[in-house]
Amino acid sequence: MIDRIDHIAIAVQNLDNAIDTFVNLLGCDRSSVVIHEVPAEKVRAAFIPVGQTKIELLEPLGDDGPVAKFLSKNGEGMHHIALATDGVVEESKRVMELGLTLLGEPSTGAGGKKIVFLHPRQTNRVLVEFVEPKPDH
Amino acid sequence: MIDRIDHIAIAVQNLDNAIDTFVNLLGCDRSSVVIHEVPAEKVRAAFIPVGQTKIELLEPLGDDGPVAKFLSKNGEGMHHIALATDGVVEESKRVMELGLTLLGEPSTGAGGKKIVFLHPRQTNRVLVEFVEPKPDH
Repeated sequence: MIDRIDHIAIAVQNLDNAIDTFVNLLGCDRSSVVIHEVPAEKVRAAFIPVGQTKIELLEPLGDDGPVAKFLSKNGEGMHHIALATDGVVEESKRVMELGLTLLGEPSTGAGGKKIVFLHPRQTNRVLVEFVEPKPDH
Repeated sequence: MIDRIDHIAIAVQNLDNAIDTFVNLLGCDRSSVVIHEVPAEKVRAAFIPVGQTKIELLEPLGDDGPVAKFLSKNGEGMHHIALATDGVVEESKRVMELGLTLLGEPSTGAGGKKIVFLHPRQTNRVLVEFVEPKPDH
């Protein structure tokens, strides 16, 4: 079951500047920002809580990861939407039966959570992620 | 104060097909979808609730509104993020003092709610809306 939007991700060139911008925009406390380095995805990610969801700012590590490629093709901007589910594997099966396509198998993302991405060609060019938060998050 | 994300908007060519896609993706009931026609913005908009926020699907009415122009330039995809606040005017003043720029004055959007957009050049090319939900929403 999908019960909320876990986060909205934005690709940025400079994470520290972008954190300043979004902390100002949201009027929140900078101490609420959590930063993860995810070498497997070649990104540094900052999560800023907003109610039940989060803004995720993504800065590339190096020149050849998916976010670096997105930036060189599109420039900065919205990158993907992540939907929270208690069962990434079950939701993946459910949407594949409805004709959607996964981008690879479920894997482990920032904070050790189970994730999978869906192919954007079947979702109006929106890159969608399913993410399974851990029970204590 | 900004306490949650009100909606994430996606520009689409065909609203009915996009509603089918996102109802399937979310596994929700089609009866939960609310459709508004907003002639002032030259769009037809469908809102699909997801927890505390909503997915908004935007189909252009005619060829010359902002969503029609977005589609002809970028194709389908994520269009803007709307932040819920109890005071659009107060938040606008607060962020202008921090150096952000409004795109016009606060006005009335879908469902009669007070809204304003911010210039994306100062927010990492993300178009951000402030929206003031009515007390009964």
